[in-house]
Amino acid sequence: MFMKNCWYVAAYDRELKDGGPLGRTLLGEPVVMFRDSRGRAIALEDRCCHRHLPLSLGQVTGDRVQCGYHGLEFDATGACVAVPGQSKVPPGAAVKAFPLVEKYGFLWIWMGEAALADEGLLPDWWWVDHPGWAHNPGAFLHIQCHYELITDNLLDLSHLGYVHTRTLGNDAIVDFPVKTERMEDRVRMSRWIQDRPPPPLFKTGGGFDGNVDRWQIVETQAPAHTVVYAGCGPVGAGEFGGRTEYTSGIHIRALNAPTPETEHSSFYFYAHVWDFRLDDAGWKQQMYDGFLMTFLEDVDILEAQQASLMRDPDRPLIDLNVDGPGLAARRMVAERIEAEKGGQKCDQKGSRVDGQTVAAR
Amino acid sequence: MFMKNCWYVAAYDRELKDGGPLGRTLLGEPVVMFRDSRGRAIALEDRCCHRHLPLSLGQVTGDRVQCGYHGLEFDATGACVAVPGQSKVPPGAAVKAFPLVEKYGFLWIWMGEAALADEGLLPDWWWVDHPGWAHNPGAFLHIQCHYELITDNLLDLSHLGYVHTRTLGNDAIVDFPVKTERMEDRVRMSRWIQDRPPPPLFKTGGGFDGNVDRWQIVETQAPAHTVVYAGCGPVGAGEFGGRTEYTSGIHIRALNAPTPETEHSSFYFYAHVWDFRLDDAGWKQQMYDGFLMTFLEDVDILEAQQASLMRDPDRPLIDLNVDGPGLAARRMVAERIEAEKGGQKCDQKGSRVDGQTVAAR
Amino acid sequence: MFMKNCWYVAAYDRELKDGGPLGRTLLGEPVVMFRDSRGRAIALEDRCCHRHLPLSLGQVTGDRVQCGYHGLEFDATGACVAVPGQSKVPPGAAVKAFPLVEKYGFLWIWMGEAALADEGLLPDWWWVDHPGWAHNPGAFLHIQCHYELITDNLLDLSHLGYVHTRTLGNDAIVDFPVKTERMEDRVRMSRWIQDRPPPPLFKTGGGFDGNVDRWQIVETQAPAHTVVYAGCGPVGAGEFGGRTEYTSGIHIRALNAPTPETEHSSFYFYAHVWDFRLDDAGWKQQMYDGFLMTFLEDVDILEAQQASLMRDPDRPLIDLNVDGPGLAARRMVAERIEAEKGGQKCDQKGSRVDGQTVAAR
Repeated sequence: MFMKNCWYVAAYDRELKDGGPLGRTLLGEPVVMFRDSRGRAIALEDRCCHRHLPLSLGQVTGDRVQCGYHGLEFDATGACVAVPGQSKVPPGAAVKAFPLVEKYGFLWIWMGEAALADEGLLPDWWWVDHPGWAHNPGAFLHIQCHYELITDNLLDLSHLGYVHTRTLGNDAIVDFPVKTERMEDRVRMSRWIQDRPPPPLFKTGGGFDGNVDRWQIVETQAPAHTVVYAGCGPVGAGEFGGRTEYTSGIHIRALNAPTPETEHSSFYFYAHVWDFRLDDAGWKQQMYDGFLMTFLEDVDILEAQQASLMRDPDRPLIDLNVDGPGLAARRMVAERIEAEKGGQKCDQKGSRVDGQTVAAR
Repeated sequence: MFMKNCWYVAAYDRELKDGGPLGRTLLGEPVVMFRDSRGRAIALEDRCCHRHLPLSLGQVTGDRVQCGYHGLEFDATGACVAVPGQSKVPPGAAVKAFPLVEKYGFLWIWMGEAALADEGLLPDWWWVDHPGWAHNPGAFLHIQCHYELITDNLLDLSHLGYVHTRTLGNDAIVDFPVKTERMEDRVRMSRWIQDRPPPPLFKTGGGFDGNVDRWQIVETQAPAHTVVYAGCGPVGAGEFGGRTEYTSGIHIRALNAPTPETEHSSFYFYAHVWDFRLDDAGWKQQMYDGFLMTFLEDVDILEAQQASLMRDPDRPLIDLNVDGPGLAARRMVAERIEAEKGGQKCDQKGSRVDGQTVAAR
Repeated sequence: MFMKNCWYVAAYDRELKDGGPLGRTLLGEPVVMFRDSRGRAIALEDRCCHRHLPLSLGQVTGDRVQCGYHGLEFDATGACVAVPGQSKVPPGAAVKAFPLVEKYGFLWIWMGEAALADEGLLPDWWWVDHPGWAHNPGAFLHIQCHYELITDNLLDLSHLGYVHTRTLGNDAIVDFPVKTERMEDRVRMSRWIQDRPPPPLFKTGGGFDGNVDRWQIVETQAPAHTVVYAGCGPVGAGEFGGRTEYTSGIHIRALNAPTPETEHSSFYFYAHVWDFRLDDAGWKQQMYDGFLMTFLEDVDILEAQQASLMRDPDRPLIDLNVDGPGLAARRMVAERIEAEKGGQKCDQKGSRVDGQTVAAR
């Protein structure tokens, strides 16, 4: 069971560079994506209504995708508009069409009720298009795990000291407590690390000699749009433990949007933006490689975790303090799924408002 | 569920060149084939009655196959006739035996009630043994799809223009309608293409300069024995759209006999015969390569179609005019399966006679 | 369903040479093994109680194993004794611990009720540690079959003449009958082969010129601890067909302990000891290679047999005389499983005593 009435990333925009068709399973459904003659990206059901061949095995002809078996053609609405060898298109000959929006280097798809699709519900990741920030789109990662394990991973950065010692982790992290907030439309985790050595990637990036103040602020919006605000600055150069980052120092945002393929597998789409060394191509490559190495370390963990969970799905989990944010995010998503089942209308932001702060246990 | 009281191709005769044993799953059952001391081909259940090791892992000893684990020996009737280390063969020690006939370059097996096996029910593919025709046995193709998808494919040649543009297809095909006939023991599809350019393989084969009249006549007998009568001749050199081919021009028969391995996989046995360039070894090779390339294009389509159908088996299919013959063949097979279930005796040809012509929709 | 209250081999001792952690599925349960700071081998559930990552992906720290995701530490009793970032370990934070004993070159695990674990129930394989015997630990064999098929294989050596003609088999075996005895805590199969040529490996090993008297005595203790007493001596040099081997001649014991991984796969642990050519390194290697080649021949048979049995699990098996010992061993294990279900206490040797000799059929 997944949230349906929300945006998921379906692909990086570069994956449709050649126009498509590109086939991919999203939320268990087969989807084909292609660009029409003006370059607009379109998403349809990836299954010809005639004999069920995936349309992604066919070809794009002008504004249509043509089936590679018997030549049926489908337009951007999913309607079959041409059947070779007969003048009349049979009634009911159509495939499902999905709203698709291109933004921030991603193609965003709406798998639920099309009438509810609203671009205003996309996350606000303005840094990608802002000249004051550098931008790295992510690598293509296909992971054999449920997508919420990725959210858990991002909302509990205490694993940095054990999984990512080469790039982002060091022993300092777990000495400082986590604060969890359930906000209007998101879950917020924050941890401030005072007067400690920076981890390897930050030390190199910011050119720090000694200790720093460091922050990790992670915000997850349903279903799984997670921004990690990470950075560090000189000790005492700002309000330690506050709601906002220091204005001095270095600032990175990791933009994360895992999308379920099935109940047991996911695509992990991501990007990074940063506000320093903007014209340094070497640093840009180092950012790309460093985070990819980090994420690949996570892949090993996540796939082993998924396999272990599937061995005995009913076995209970013991929760720790650091699980507060992840559990709050799971509750947020579960409420949304429940609301969709009940046919309840969601508010503008698509979320139940409670305004309560969920205390870390 | 498959038809059982009928012949299926179990193997090419050349596959038993070394005498066997050769193991293969047919209609979901394990079958072992071998040749006795006089070269006669024999088919037994591929599972020793003792500890179930496949007999195909053993060896042929004279007229018997010997299990590779404990040395039990089975004769052509499936009876266990020797147990090493004990003088008495235990009661019930036997494996199933299947009628097996060698003809037209194929080994034909009868998986149903052995008493009903009748060589007179084999299809009449006399061209294979006639000096006026050249003959190419097919390649070994193991396809991950239900065997009826192969029959559909052969009975709907409108796909030639989309899947096989390099050899057999061109745009002309779908301009001409399909005629479907349900005959006494078979389904017949015919399409005549008038005054059009020949496709690449026919142009080379017949040495045609300009347009031709071309025909595709496909006849399927249950369970899936399908002859494609294909050819072309000079424009106006015969009765266009008639029941029989032009006597002038070139004539090819594609002899097809897909056999189910399981509900989701098949072996596709085939051969080609033709009545021109009989002593031209280069053309013989070109025929072999051209049709193999064509069939391998089909394999990609058929396996993707099977996987897509299995994602959502209950999703309806939209039918087109060109599906008439395939649907009629499916009805023919379904009636035969129903008759076998009900224990009804079949007539000489093994089929219900209705004599009705099924009009193309 | 497996016997639980008994010892199984979990690993060769050499597999923990580096201290671990080593993850392995045994009887369907995930197990992690490691050595503490004094070298003692420990076995725990291979699943962190927090988020279920296998502990075998973490690292050993002193006397503990540390989870590779969030750093939780577990001691030899399975208790979680440290949670990074919080002072209090949550109630219930623990994993299962299994009794583990190191003996005869193997690590023996007790997967059932820990309170019943008793080293006195280990098989008595004293030859491994005795200076009058040479010793080869086995290779690591992971076989896709139920472990009882391995016991069947060992208790019915009539297959030597069909599967292992290169090393241990020859035609002579099946001329001599098998005797089956159900003893207090084990099943015993014996076969004496009089005045026949020795098989290849024995001929080389013992330097025999002509015929020999040869014996195969196989004893299986539940669940699957099987000693093969094999050897041969000069014709007439001892009591042919007796309860004990000739004192003259050569003596080999194959020590076998297959362990179920799942219902369909097993680990096959073994060792060999022998009382001749004790300081002959070439012979030692020849013993290792010869028996490994032999066992790999069995692997092919056993995996094909398992696959064939799984095709049609309800199909009956025809039993032969040679199956007497294997069937008796299966009854012995089934009785033990039944007794464990009923919560019955077992006697010192863990087996029902009947003292009856099961006659070979």
